[in-house]
Amino acid sequence: MTGTLVVAGLGPGNETVITPEVTQALAVATDVVGYIPYVARIPARPGLTLHATDNRVELARATHALEMAAAGRRVVVVSSGDPGVFAMASAVFEAMENTPHLTGVDVRVLPGITAMLAAAARVGAPLGHDFCAINLSDNLKPWGIVERRLRLAAQADFAMAFYNPRSASRPHQFARALDILREECGPERLIIFAHAVTTSAERIVVTTLGEARPEMADMRTVVLLGNAATRQVGRYVYTPRRAV
Amino acid sequence: MTGTLVVAGLGPGNETVITPEVTQALAVATDVVGYIPYVARIPARPGLTLHATDNRVELARATHALEMAAAGRRVVVVSSGDPGVFAMASAVFEAMENTPHLTGVDVRVLPGITAMLAAAARVGAPLGHDFCAINLSDNLKPWGIVERRLRLAAQADFAMAFYNPRSASRPHQFARALDILREECGPERLIIFAHAVTTSAERIVVTTLGEARPEMADMRTVVLLGNAATRQVGRYVYTPRRAV
Repeated sequence: MTGTLVVAGLGPGNETVITPEVTQALAVATDVVGYIPYVARIPARPGLTLHATDNRVELARATHALEMAAAGRRVVVVSSGDPGVFAMASAVFEAMENTPHLTGVDVRVLPGITAMLAAAARVGAPLGHDFCAINLSDNLKPWGIVERRLRLAAQADFAMAFYNPRSASRPHQFARALDILREECGPERLIIFAHAVTTSAERIVVTTLGEARPEMADMRTVVLLGNAATRQVGRYVYTPRRAV
Repeated sequence: MTGTLVVAGLGPGNETVITPEVTQALAVATDVVGYIPYVARIPARPGLTLHATDNRVELARATHALEMAAAGRRVVVVSSGDPGVFAMASAVFEAMENTPHLTGVDVRVLPGITAMLAAAARVGAPLGHDFCAINLSDNLKPWGIVERRLRLAAQADFAMAFYNPRSASRPHQFARALDILREECGPERLIIFAHAVTTSAERIVVTTLGEARPEMADMRTVVLLGNAATRQVGRYVYTPRRAV
């Protein structure tokens, strides 16, 4: 028997936004691999082994998943959101590149609803024009690259989505990011803090860069910034399709 | 009875990537509104009225949907992909802004799998690092803004996704976009043409900017461009999480 590796997106948290193809892949899996809180979302059943691992071991987890698939198992690596957006899909291909005898493993990536699009939907359509997605963590890139991207993205007048804006180990960088964005975009620009979107802990704040405070974000928050035309209508926030 | 307006994403084409919350909203709708090929995906049933309209009438369609909801109907506006990404959600809020007596309508946006993430999943993880999404149509913005955004996005070393790259009415602009990207990124940069992704007509080409030809795209194609680190491993394309 030939094994398979599926890298599946569980969406932002609510079961009603998991796609049927992901549900089906989980139903026939022999092994589910992932970060502890995501594996905790998968119900146990006979014939299924759950492999929950800690954060920051993505490459080791990916290699283990590839090895099990190469040994004939039906493995599903679970990510929250979309696996291709700051999640496990890249780690799987990095692990494959580092381990040439695993290059032949059959890998399928199944998309999911990523946090920025779930958050955008909750408030209206703030990403309704050209936009970018930036991971604010400097675990895997120098902070200088982040600062440069923020300035260029502002000059391009992209709406923006920020993943991993702030953690206990690096509390000051998000404050610096907000300073840069205020410089480039001015204090009136709309910004949205969406915490634990679609879950029972969801909390969404719509404010301006002038009023934004770093403490409004944590690691479960995705932050959306409007472009120069983003506005409010009724209780919604949207970015027009037409450029100013 | 108070009506509601749901703006729902049908995903890129395959029924197995429609979320359960969208399926549920369609099951209780009294009216489904949208562009002809998207409404054609909704099965007829007693009690449901289908309102299929042509392309380029988005605002009129959105106003009609809001008016029906204000009159007490349960209306679903269908988009392909995600309604918040170059689709109907912004048009609905634009229509609301233009029609103050409709500002009170209860609108819910339900996210879907957008084409760039479906395409990325099919080839690996080309959007696995910071990226941007640009609509290449100049129906709603001057072409000069597109050119400026392409250059700034390349200077920021974003991976990129391009929607509406090319149509019969504007065949030359995509050639110009490829020229700009070759200038900024060089001929070796990986580019992916994903036509009708997830459908039976799916056709995916992975090549380089040096080999890319405008005819590789049409209006059913989403185009993905790697960043400076994007590479191939086995038959997959991925962008490492780590910045170069």
